[in-house]
Amino acid sequence: MKFVEKLDRAAQRNQSQLCVGLDVDLSKFPAEILNTDDPIFNFNKKIIDQTADLVCAYKPNMAFYEALGIYGLEALIHTIEYIDEECGVPVILDAKRGDVGHTAAAYAKAVFEIYKADATTVNPYLGHDSIEPFLNYREKGIFVLCLTSNIGFRDFQTAGREEPLYISVARHVKEWNHYGNCGLVVGATSAEELKEIKKIAGDMPILIPGVGAQGGDLKNSVKYGGRRAIINVSRSVIYAENPREEASKYKKEILAVRG
Amino acid sequence: MKFVEKLDRAAQRNQSQLCVGLDVDLSKFPAEILNTDDPIFNFNKKIIDQTADLVCAYKPNMAFYEALGIYGLEALIHTIEYIDEECGVPVILDAKRGDVGHTAAAYAKAVFEIYKADATTVNPYLGHDSIEPFLNYREKGIFVLCLTSNIGFRDFQTAGREEPLYISVARHVKEWNHYGNCGLVVGATSAEELKEIKKIAGDMPILIPGVGAQGGDLKNSVKYGGRRAIINVSRSVIYAENPREEASKYKKEILAVRG
Repeated sequence: MKFVEKLDRAAQRNQSQLCVGLDVDLSKFPAEILNTDDPIFNFNKKIIDQTADLVCAYKPNMAFYEALGIYGLEALIHTIEYIDEECGVPVILDAKRGDVGHTAAAYAKAVFEIYKADATTVNPYLGHDSIEPFLNYREKGIFVLCLTSNIGFRDFQTAGREEPLYISVARHVKEWNHYGNCGLVVGATSAEELKEIKKIAGDMPILIPGVGAQGGDLKNSVKYGGRRAIINVSRSVIYAENPREEASKYKKEILAVRG
Repeated sequence: MKFVEKLDRAAQRNQSQLCVGLDVDLSKFPAEILNTDDPIFNFNKKIIDQTADLVCAYKPNMAFYEALGIYGLEALIHTIEYIDEECGVPVILDAKRGDVGHTAAAYAKAVFEIYKADATTVNPYLGHDSIEPFLNYREKGIFVLCLTSNIGFRDFQTAGREEPLYISVARHVKEWNHYGNCGLVVGATSAEELKEIKKIAGDMPILIPGVGAQGGDLKNSVKYGGRRAIINVSRSVIYAENPREEASKYKKEILAVRG
């Protein structure tokens, strides 16, 4: 099944545009999880079991698993398998890869064939041949970084000759979307710019991080992002005292804006 | 020891500005290596044993190891340990990572503490807070992508309001270089632009890929890149019938230009 179909079905079934970010951090794990044989997988399993009927996607960020060494990456593989088998919710592996053509092909193979993600994020800095090997996986989703949610985004993303770089990225991605498998990443911290990006993006899904710990604007992100906006919340849900309650709160907040 | 010192020492000792890229590809391995218990490590060991006195650095690209799964990453760790123990040549782990601040910190931990590289490459698209966690490893080297060697580099890297994006990146990196641990990546395919970048970069090391299989200009890259230009060659050396002979040829070509 194509990624967008899987996304639309999960969003429809769960009446949700919420994505939960599985950004593992051992220092924040409760003791009863830390003391198990497989704390990373067990932590994720607990979050997944509590939220599988409340989300349209899960988004593990590769960095946190890499930082835990080989064991972290094994737990990531195990987590993605579990999501696939148990709940049919798509997994966006947030990896932000970008490299020259033949090297990008190796990265695409890693995220889609080794880690078996349904979608991934990529960095546009190297241009079209760095993204093409990902696009060739027609059933998968490829979210290109457009306008990010961090404080440094203005260093380069808003530069540009005739238009800001992020607009140029959005236009290029629209052109590259031959197989209908592209998406964009736009931070909830730039909801006004999202309005403008959405006009270019049309029906492409837009992954919107930055709500929660990063203080992004949930209301306008949902309003301007459209029906395929994927609102990601990570730390505020997974390290909440009651993750299900917190995810449910975000799901309802999003629904209230959509009406 | 600081990365630049380790680099300068290896360059001095071996009279070389050649870096060999360890981009493993099982489909190109000779049968006698493929049939061993640990083909990736054994392939790399053979290359390292043949070239350790001819290079100033080794550059494994993370993508090729990730694409081989957990075993690939274990072999990468094993390879970097071997280089460190056997020949004191610095390892630049080509990972091109880039993510928001707290996530970038996890990537920096992975490349420097899990894989134990001496240096790495990073992508500038997300701006200063995506690079800062790497810079805080003061003993390590951080090469920021500036102008890459692939065909898509013109999509975004040459855009810019008052100056091309790659010049803006070079200027920002120069500013961020408080600990003297920054470098730039400039493709040998853009030797003319390298001249201009070098004026901004001053004494910073410049990693120059694109010689060999990608057809970059070795002569002008060496001429304009200066004494800390690191000329990387991957496939043309490691898959040559006689890798030592090929590395030696490149080393001499570089020396001939330096005079």
